Amino acid sequence: MQFSSKLIEEAVNAFAGLPGIGKKTALRLVLHLVQQPKEDSIYFARAIADMREGIQHCITCGNLSDQHVCSICRDERRDQSLICVVESIRDVMAIEDTQQYRGLYHVLGGIIAPMEGVGPTDLNIDTLVGRAKHPDVQEIIMAISPTIEGETTIFYISKMLDELDVTVSKIARGVSFGGELEYADEVTLGRSLVARTSL
Amino acid sequence: MQFSSKLIEEAVNAFAGLPGIGKKTALRLVLHLVQQPKEDSIYFARAIADMREGIQHCITCGNLSDQHVCSICRDERRDQSLICVVESIRDVMAIEDTQQYRGLYHVLGGIIAPMEGVGPTDLNIDTLVGRAKHPDVQEIIMAISPTIEGETTIFYISKMLDELDVTVSKIARGVSFGGELEYADEVTLGRSLVARTSL
Repeated sequence: MQFSSKLIEEAVNAFAGLPGIGKKTALRLVLHLVQQPKEDSIYFARAIADMREGIQHCITCGNLSDQHVCSICRDERRDQSLICVVESIRDVMAIEDTQQYRGLYHVLGGIIAPMEGVGPTDLNIDTLVGRAKHPDVQEIIMAISPTIEGETTIFYISKMLDELDVTVSKIARGVSFGGELEYADEVTLGRSLVARTSL
Repeated sequence: MQFSSKLIEEAVNAFAGLPGIGKKTALRLVLHLVQQPKEDSIYFARAIADMREGIQHCITCGNLSDQHVCSICRDERRDQSLICVVESIRDVMAIEDTQQYRGLYHVLGGIIAPMEGVGPTDLNIDTLVGRAKHPDVQEIIMAISPTIEGETTIFYISKMLDELDVTVSKIARGVSFGGELEYADEVTLGRSLVARTSL
């Protein structure tokens, strides 16, 4: 790609460095910004820079936050006896969107994946064990993806919590609500039969 | 989407304001930036802001440029007798990438599209007529998409240039090089038969 402008070239390269954005898409985005009012692009750039300067991990749960302790951990109306363990901040957002959970979270920052060189010490597990010792905490809910790595992570963490006086649970697996049975994969369908619940 | 961080929310909204980027993709991009070193995100934001602050339209051809006159118009080694008329800067880049053209450009900034409220006065046509009067200029090449709007634009401009002592040409249309004939659309195939050239 030949650029007549160094400024355009650098902006295109900046966008093309993001995951899933190729050079052509990057150029389209840059030309869009050129056509918008100047303030919009400056606002865009400022939002990114401010976010990256200001964002931090909550020292309690590992969630992304504007402050040392995130808004969820600060919220005293939330149920302090429940801690939901998730892989990433995306999962926190997905669960918050359900509006079905009013407890606290703990963000591991990944799952145990030896093939990718991620071991237990790379994750936020020690701090979870520390939190689980607090007398208020009664249940640790594992909301981890039902994959091999996820199961390994759940198993490892449950072993770490074995000695403590807390219940460890994991979220229910089964066929999706609103999904057609015939489209459910066989493993899910098979397990949901084995793990059937009485009416 | 529930955000525990105002900073993340604003950065996601900034990305989601770009064309073709939804909220989920925007969140993925923002979380990518969070995981990268801080300098990378600051560099990203600066590249966008610098680009938008510094970029201008070349006062001669309308191409995007870092200076008043773009690097192509400034380049005295280029053939000053040829002006290639294109719709947008993207077309300039596409033609430059072919390395088959060493003349100058003229960027219209769009094509005549009455349905979208774009008339001749919204485009860079007056300046083209002005440039065409220069004694050095011998040929105006219309490199406009072969659509209804494109043909209208070509017709309008050729009328404007009628009185002047310049050749007006348009780029060849026909079947694509390397393409299978059976996959060419009928209009292209039909016209390429009518406009056949002798060997």
